[in-house]
Amino acid sequence: MSLLVVGSIAYDSVKTPFGKKDEVLGGSALYCGLAASFFVPVNLVAVVGSDFSKRHLKFLRERGIDTKGLQIKKGKTFRWKAEYSYDLNMRKTLATHLNVLRNFKPKLPESYKDSKYIFLANLDPDLQHMVLDELNYPKLVACDTMNLWIERKRDSLMKLLKRVEIFIINESEARELTAEPNLIKAGRKICNLGPKMVILKKGEDGALFFGKHFKFLSVAYPLESVYDPTGSGDVFAGGFMGYLTKQNKLTKSSFKKALIYGTILASFNVESFSIERLKKLRREDIDKRYKELKRLTHF
Amino acid sequence: MSLLVVGSIAYDSVKTPFGKKDEVLGGSALYCGLAASFFVPVNLVAVVGSDFSKRHLKFLRERGIDTKGLQIKKGKTFRWKAEYSYDLNMRKTLATHLNVLRNFKPKLPESYKDSKYIFLANLDPDLQHMVLDELNYPKLVACDTMNLWIERKRDSLMKLLKRVEIFIINESEARELTAEPNLIKAGRKICNLGPKMVILKKGEDGALFFGKHFKFLSVAYPLESVYDPTGSGDVFAGGFMGYLTKQNKLTKSSFKKALIYGTILASFNVESFSIERLKKLRREDIDKRYKELKRLTHF
Repeated sequence: MSLLVVGSIAYDSVKTPFGKKDEVLGGSALYCGLAASFFVPVNLVAVVGSDFSKRHLKFLRERGIDTKGLQIKKGKTFRWKAEYSYDLNMRKTLATHLNVLRNFKPKLPESYKDSKYIFLANLDPDLQHMVLDELNYPKLVACDTMNLWIERKRDSLMKLLKRVEIFIINESEARELTAEPNLIKAGRKICNLGPKMVILKKGEDGALFFGKHFKFLSVAYPLESVYDPTGSGDVFAGGFMGYLTKQNKLTKSSFKKALIYGTILASFNVESFSIERLKKLRREDIDKRYKELKRLTHF
Repeated sequence: MSLLVVGSIAYDSVKTPFGKKDEVLGGSALYCGLAASFFVPVNLVAVVGSDFSKRHLKFLRERGIDTKGLQIKKGKTFRWKAEYSYDLNMRKTLATHLNVLRNFKPKLPESYKDSKYIFLANLDPDLQHMVLDELNYPKLVACDTMNLWIERKRDSLMKLLKRVEIFIINESEARELTAEPNLIKAGRKICNLGPKMVILKKGEDGALFFGKHFKFLSVAYPLESVYDPTGSGDVFAGGFMGYLTKQNKLTKSSFKKALIYGTILASFNVESFSIERLKKLRREDIDKRYKELKRLTHF
C-alpha cells in the first residue's frame, strides 16, 4: 500500500536563533513525503522548476518516493524565506516567491488514481478539490490548510471539509476558522463542518484528536534542543498517514498509534535545519522514542 | 496518615471574562488542603484574621481539615484582588493586602511535628524554613514558591531547595529561576539545585515531572469551559500530595498516579469560581475523570 501525497516542494531560506540556512529542501509535500517514507512507499504529486537539483531528485527516489507525478516546469522552484523569534513560537515570512507553483495544476498519473490513502498537504483548496476529482475510490483522505486559504478561499475550503475524512489544522488556524478561542470547542465545531476526524496541532504542546467515536490527546516528545520547527506539521502528518497506510486498518488503536508516530517524527524534524535530521534517521530511532514516550506518559 | 499543609488563607476578589466574585475563600493552603482532603485528613497551619467567618471555619472542619494549627489573629484576613485576561493566560494582581499574614510565624502544634508528608504552599521561604526546623523526621516534603521570592529571597529559597524532596514550580518561575528558556533544561537545572524531584506546571498544557530515576509528562484534562484558574496550582499540588500520602508508598507508579490525580483535581477547580466546584465534587467524579484521561492518552 502506498501513500499519495500532494503539495508543494520548495527551496527554503530559514533563520532561527540557532543558525541560518539558505536554499535548502522544503515544502509541505517534501516534508510529509519524507516522513511517510519511513513506513510506506510514497507517490508524490508536486511541481518544481528546471533549477531543481538532480541530486535532490535522486535523493527522493532513493527514499522510496515515486516521482512520476512530479512535474518539472521551466522556471524556478518555489522559494520561501522566514525568520523565527527567540523562543521559536513566532515566525515571520520574509518572502514567498511562488515561481512555478503559481500555475501548478496537480495531475495524477493513471496508476495513482486508485490510491486508497491520500494526504493533501497545504495548497490552494481549489487544487485540493482537483485531486479529489481525479481519485476513484479513496479510503482515507486527510488534508491540511493554512490561514491564507481560510481568509481568501473560505468557500472552497468549506466544501473541501465535506469531502475529506481527516482535517489537520494548527491551533491558531482552528481559532480563526471557528472564531472560538477554546480549542476543545473549536475542534468539535470543525467536526460539524464535515470531516469525520479533526487533528488539532499544538506544536510543542502536542495534538488533540477529535473523532465521532473517540478523542485522543498526544503530548509532544520533550526535547532539550529545538533548532528549526519548519515543516514539523507536515512531518507530523506524514508520520501519522504513513503509519496508518502501513497498517491499512482504521481502528481506534491504529489512529492512536499513528498520532504518536506523527509526534515522534516531528520531534526529530525540529532537531536540525531542513530535512537534515530526517535524512540520518533510522527506523529503530523512531521505535526507541515511541517506547520512551509510552514510559513518559502511561500511568 | 495525614498531610501537613502550611500556607496562606485569603479572601479573594477575582474578575475573569466570565464573571466576578468578591471576598471569596482562597489562599494557597486553603486550595491545597481542600484538594488533599479528598484523599487524607489534612492538618492546616495558616493564619486568618478575626473577620474570618465561623461558617468557613466550620466548613474546613467538616472537610476533615484539622485547624489546631490555624492561628486566628486580631485584624483582617489576607486580601488578594486580581483580574484575568480574555484567554485566562494573563493575570494582573490589582491589590495585595497582607493584613494578619504580614507578621505570620507558622507554629506547629506538638502533634504535627511528627508529620511524614508535608506541603509547604507558597509563602516567604524564611517561613518555610521555620516549618522544616520544627519537624522531626519528615518522609516527603514538597514546596511551592512564587516569582516574588525568586526575586527578593533568592538565597533563602536556594537553601530551601536543598532541604526538600519535591519542588513544584510553574513554567515562568522555572525560566526566571534558571535563566533557561527551554523547560526540559530548566527542569534538569532545578534538580541540580537540590530537590530530588521537580514538578514543572504548564497550566492547560499539563506538567513535567523530573526525578533522579525517571521523568513523566502529564497532560491537562481537556476542558470546554474554564471560568477561573485561581488556585489551580495549589489544587494540583494538593491532589498530588494527598494521593501520595494516602498511598504512603514512594514508587514510580504512585508518583505517576499522584500527578494524574493532581491534574484531575485542578481540572475541576477551574470550572467554577473560588472553591465552588470542589465543594460539590465527589470522589467518584474524580475517579471517572481519571479513567477518562487514561482512555484519552494511552496508546
